[in-house]
Amino acid sequence: MTEKRIYADNAATTAVSDVAFEAMLPYFRESYGNPSATHSYGTAAKRAVEDARKKVAESIGARINEIYFTSGGTESDNWAILAAAGLRKKKGRHIITSAVEHNAVHNTVQQLEKRGYEVTWLPVDKYGMVSPEQLEEAVREDTILISVMTANNEIGTLQPVRELAEIAGRHKVLFHTDAVQAAGHIPLDVRELGVDLMSLSAHKFHGPKGVGALYISLRTALPPILFGGGQEKGKRSGTTNVPGVVGMAAALEDAVRRMDENVRKVTALRDRLIEGVLNLPGAALTGHPVQRLPGLASFIFKDVKGGPLVAALDEAGVCASSGSACSAGAGEPSRVLKAAGIITAEDVAAPLRLSLSGYNTAEEIDEIIRRLPAALKRAASESVLAGPDNMDVD
Amino acid sequence: MTEKRIYADNAATTAVSDVAFEAMLPYFRESYGNPSATHSYGTAAKRAVEDARKKVAESIGARINEIYFTSGGTESDNWAILAAAGLRKKKGRHIITSAVEHNAVHNTVQQLEKRGYEVTWLPVDKYGMVSPEQLEEAVREDTILISVMTANNEIGTLQPVRELAEIAGRHKVLFHTDAVQAAGHIPLDVRELGVDLMSLSAHKFHGPKGVGALYISLRTALPPILFGGGQEKGKRSGTTNVPGVVGMAAALEDAVRRMDENVRKVTALRDRLIEGVLNLPGAALTGHPVQRLPGLASFIFKDVKGGPLVAALDEAGVCASSGSACSAGAGEPSRVLKAAGIITAEDVAAPLRLSLSGYNTAEEIDEIIRRLPAALKRAASESVLAGPDNMDVD
Repeated sequence: MTEKRIYADNAATTAVSDVAFEAMLPYFRESYGNPSATHSYGTAAKRAVEDARKKVAESIGARINEIYFTSGGTESDNWAILAAAGLRKKKGRHIITSAVEHNAVHNTVQQLEKRGYEVTWLPVDKYGMVSPEQLEEAVREDTILISVMTANNEIGTLQPVRELAEIAGRHKVLFHTDAVQAAGHIPLDVRELGVDLMSLSAHKFHGPKGVGALYISLRTALPPILFGGGQEKGKRSGTTNVPGVVGMAAALEDAVRRMDENVRKVTALRDRLIEGVLNLPGAALTGHPVQRLPGLASFIFKDVKGGPLVAALDEAGVCASSGSACSAGAGEPSRVLKAAGIITAEDVAAPLRLSLSGYNTAEEIDEIIRRLPAALKRAASESVLAGPDNMDVD
Repeated sequence: MTEKRIYADNAATTAVSDVAFEAMLPYFRESYGNPSATHSYGTAAKRAVEDARKKVAESIGARINEIYFTSGGTESDNWAILAAAGLRKKKGRHIITSAVEHNAVHNTVQQLEKRGYEVTWLPVDKYGMVSPEQLEEAVREDTILISVMTANNEIGTLQPVRELAEIAGRHKVLFHTDAVQAAGHIPLDVRELGVDLMSLSAHKFHGPKGVGALYISLRTALPPILFGGGQEKGKRSGTTNVPGVVGMAAALEDAVRRMDENVRKVTALRDRLIEGVLNLPGAALTGHPVQRLPGLASFIFKDVKGGPLVAALDEAGVCASSGSACSAGAGEPSRVLKAAGIITAEDVAAPLRLSLSGYNTAEEIDEIIRRLPAALKRAASESVLAGPDNMDVD
């Protein structure tokens, strides 16, 4: 492989931006204090953490004391769901979520199902979108939590979060949204959306891995799920990852500052990519044609398997994903694509997710389009022999 | 403050070492793939994670598939305790722990107490040490978990973990040890110690904040407490913090490689410090005189408060701690010092913890001893007026 490598898997993870990296740098070896310590090293670290909290809050229209730092999107989702269920269990044990959530929500809700909670899995239309009407019908007297993602990680579809949260609010049901794929990519305002809980993950918007946040509205007395030293006002124990939260805040602030310009640029790249790929035989777009993440182009190719296609593209110097095409290890076809009626369990069809960032260029898009036909051909010939499909987890 | 600042709060957190920092560096902006992705960026990240796992395993005598990465010591402790309780609840609901555990263990066990588990809090002697005989007496038919720390974070006392784990093993009770203060500071071998579960935190041994590990022996089928993408063989979901685990492994490998030399050096510094401080009027050593962490010197000063003393030392350019002297916000005197009978609730007495690392020098020790009397004098005069004592959380 001598050609320049093209990274088109930004929905899986992103490179740390220079601005985030430079912001983190002093907190590893110089200003390395524990923010809970009362001496000057400690107070300097604490100032950095509180400054980061302010930036994250402002980036999503929240108040400073509504932002709690976590180890990432998965912890944020688990916290929101497990703690909300515990908080409201006297009111009832019914939870509503969608059929197309990320596993961090899906599997956590399933855990609650095993513990005796009742779950309504909202269906989606052919674009993977939840309908407010169906949510309205699903709400019951004993409903305690609704969790619907802001943007889908496999097919990029944006959910009507504002309408859904409005229904939740009217019925006095807590509303959580996993905004891990959306934050930093589309404008988000927690008050405008009317959500009670929102999960963020830094490494999806050019911040570092291992750090995230949970927005908890002031009106929600969410209990902790990790116990200890009482950091984060007693809600999330554990020494704060100072460089991590500083990097997260810098990346998110930067993303929000350049939001309009970046959305325009990335949307243009995405549409150029979609146009080029749809010219190939057997290709179809998955997800909503318009209500979708600016950088996420997702397709399905008949008679090809996702694993061999991603491998062939990798050989051709393109980092792509089969789009969390399979659940863990089992070789099962995508739950999301099945829910949207795009594939059935029997279909041989390769989902392909190409997820872009502001670092991608038009030349790279053209290269992807140029390299794709040979990769598809190679993957199709290998798919006949291939075993269970590979798994990509974001 | 024009004098050179001396950092003597290494039990709270440490500077990231150059070797750990350099190891992490490529994983922020170059080799930034998601280890779950199947393309080349993903497989490069996965290799780095598995190499880190091997290093951490070898550093504590574990097998590679016994190491699970977490967000830090608090998550590791919570996971070990909450999951072990769930795993064994059919056998019984009795847990044994010590009265001097870190809050990450203490408060998690208290949560289980609220959920109907019965807890025996083992007393300690005047050095803060648990007795194997008392553990033997406390074990019951329905005991499912014993959790005793390897080294105390406030007074540095080392517990007889091998003897305690042997008792647990004989009674077929799971044994967890919070080794957060010990790892990288004293030699640890999980097989020699005979423990089932061991918590580690990278930032206590010159690794980065926000990353830790839980050793889970192959014979222990510990369920997860975080659900999602199925990372860490389904046991700990969430995108792996690649630079974090790489930095942790590099720091721990380095600490183990230089263990003998470092223990000798730091013990000599600590003893020089203890000797100098004990010459001051009203000073007493806390913790065991010999069975203690190489770098941790802890004292108690009569008629002084911890908060003002730490503040006065900080003014004098010395970063120290009152040794987690108070529980969260309440201004309560140290639970550890009370358990060891060193103070009562009515005493006015300042705990002072000076915790050293290989970066400290003999000159710094002498400077601390030189600057301490004036700080004590100033703190004593302020302690008359001061309100509730400050809290330091590690």
